[in-house]
This record gives sequence, C-alpha cells and structure tokens, in this order.
Amino acid sequence: MKKFEEKTIHSKEIYNGKIIRLQIDDVVLPDGNMAKREIVKHPGAVAVIAINDENKIIMVEQYRKPLERSLLEIPAGKLEYGEEPLVTAERELEEETGYAAGKMEHLISFYTSPGFADELIHLYIATDLKKIDNPKIGDEDEFVELYEITLEEAVQYVEEKRIYDAKTAYAVLYLQLKMAMTPNE
Amino acid sequence: MKKFEEKTIHSKEIYNGKIIRLQIDDVVLPDGNMAKREIVKHPGAVAVIAINDENKIIMVEQYRKPLERSLLEIPAGKLEYGEEPLVTAERELEEETGYAAGKMEHLISFYTSPGFADELIHLYIATDLKKIDNPKIGDEDEFVELYEITLEEAVQYVEEKRIYDAKTAYAVLYLQLKMAMTPNE
Repeated sequence: MKKFEEKTIHSKEIYNGKIIRLQIDDVVLPDGNMAKREIVKHPGAVAVIAINDENKIIMVEQYRKPLERSLLEIPAGKLEYGEEPLVTAERELEEETGYAAGKMEHLISFYTSPGFADELIHLYIATDLKKIDNPKIGDEDEFVELYEITLEEAVQYVEEKRIYDAKTAYAVLYLQLKMAMTPNE
Repeated sequence: MKKFEEKTIHSKEIYNGKIIRLQIDDVVLPDGNMAKREIVKHPGAVAVIAINDENKIIMVEQYRKPLERSLLEIPAGKLEYGEEPLVTAERELEEETGYAAGKMEHLISFYTSPGFADELIHLYIATDLKKIDNPKIGDEDEFVELYEITLEEAVQYVEEKRIYDAKTAYAVLYLQLKMAMTPNE
C-alpha cells in the first residue's frame, strides 16, 4: 500500500476553515524528482440509504453552492470530531429526515476524490424506519426538502441528472443490483 | 434546480494552484441570514471502465498523497482546458494503460463531493481494446502500475479496501449488475 510512496519534504497550510483545510506538500517522487501536491483535508462523512416500509428511498433536496444548483441526494453529513460514523449516520438521518432506523448496517466506505482530497464517505443502509415525534434539528444554515421515491423514480432521476452525485448514484445502483438478485415474489 | 438558492454577496480567491482553486463565498441563505461557503474548483475528470477480450478489468495502482497510500483504481485523469471528455478518456486510457479502445461509450457522470467541490467525473466504458505499439506517456510526475483483474478479484479488492474510491467502487458495482442481468451462457 506504500508503492510509489511520495515522501513529504515540506508541508504548508494555506487555509483552515469550518469544513476543509488546504495544504500544499512538497514531495520527493519515486524517481527522486520533486513535485507539489495540493491536498484538501476533510473530516469524512456518512451517507444513509434509508428505505421505508413501502420500499421507498428517503431523499433530500439541498442547494449545493459549489455547483450553483440543488441536487436530490441520500441523507448525508460530516463526522464531528471523534464521532463514530454509525452515530453520525443516526444523527444525520434524524436531523435531515426525522426518521430513526430500527436497523442500520454499514455497506461500504470509499474516498470520493483521492487525487486531491482525503474525504472518506461511510455508506449505511437504514431500514425499519420510525418517524420521531420531535426530531433534533440540524445545522441552522442547512435547508433541505424531503422526498420518498421508488427505485424506478430514482433511476429516472439519475438519467435526468437530478440525482447527480457519486454516493447517491452508488446507492441507486446498489438497490438495482439487490433487486436484480432477489427472485421475483 | 435553484431551490434554496444561496446568492453570492462576496467571493474571495484563497488559492489558485495547478489542479484546484479554493474560494470562500459569503452567501445569503433562503431565510435571509448570511453564511460562508468553502468551495474547491476543479476542472473535472474522466474515468474509464476498460474491459479486455478475456473479460478482465484494467486497473492502475497509484500513490495517492492525500491518503498517504496507494489505491487500485480504474484509469482516470483530469480534463485539459476546453477538452471534450471523450478525448480525455481516450488519452488517459492510452497514457495510463497503453490501450486504445475500439468502442468507448459514456455510462454516467457524477459530482464526487458536491458539499465542497465542483469536481464532475465522466465515466466511460471501453471495449474492443488493442495494445498501442508506442503509447503516449502521461504526466512525468505520475507513477502507475497496471493490473488486469477479473470481476471476482475486483469484488474481493473492494472488501479488502485495496479498491477504495467512489468511481472504482461504482465501476465494480456496475459490472456486478451487468453480470446479474445477463442470462448465463
């Protein structure tokens, strides 16, 4: 896992913000030459594929400033410092959707942009959902709208680019695979 | 697509590098309050699911400085300014693997980290592969090692976290779905 390792000679912090940090590393390449690496540090995040009793997927619509548009995504959120991903998943599901999950299982984790960022997303599947009477409210600067959609609608939204991000596209594909492997009832 | 739009009042460039730019936007939220948004600008990228005549997937191992480890990934690379993604896909496939594709089809595009970055990855499927006699060489600061693996091996590598990034995990899942939907021969 250390093949082609790039040793850091010097690291400079450019920015330290609320969500990300940016640092520039001077590294020695395997051939002895030098190069600069631009690195975004991120606390990591969770995302939740939540399926209700009608077999519908819970989605949230949210404005994404970097894209200057809103997207339909599975519920997600950043890890707080030192927080277990499972705890984050339960918290974000409650804050963004008002649901608690009777069952929450880890599916997969993946780096989103390994070329320039260390963001790792932990993907969970939540089932046996129950509406919470007085759910906790999330960040005050987050505005989301809730949707409960079928897998067929989700596939359609991927084609229409209303669903347009990696974690949600992965979630839709995963549910398609699960459906394809389940014998018809 | 503009639901919950956040209007920019002020935008400040913090860093303008070789691959990414960082800017901080002051925005007005839907409720009239103000917030700061940390935004990484990225030129976008392509990734290629390349399948050879033995039904093996072409993978490259590469050191990823932000993670301080190497990953096994499908071939990928950044868009050059003004470049068509299809052209980038053909170029990156040649530079990283030495293959040309008789057939190159667009599968899906997705944003990798819509919360803090505008990186959009265009995913292609390449088949009818031919080894090129004198392939173009890629960036001189890129060191990659080539692998040709079966779908079963890829699934195993996902479990072992040797494959550990969103685009490659998506590619493996896509091939699993394709296999599940293809009647046994």
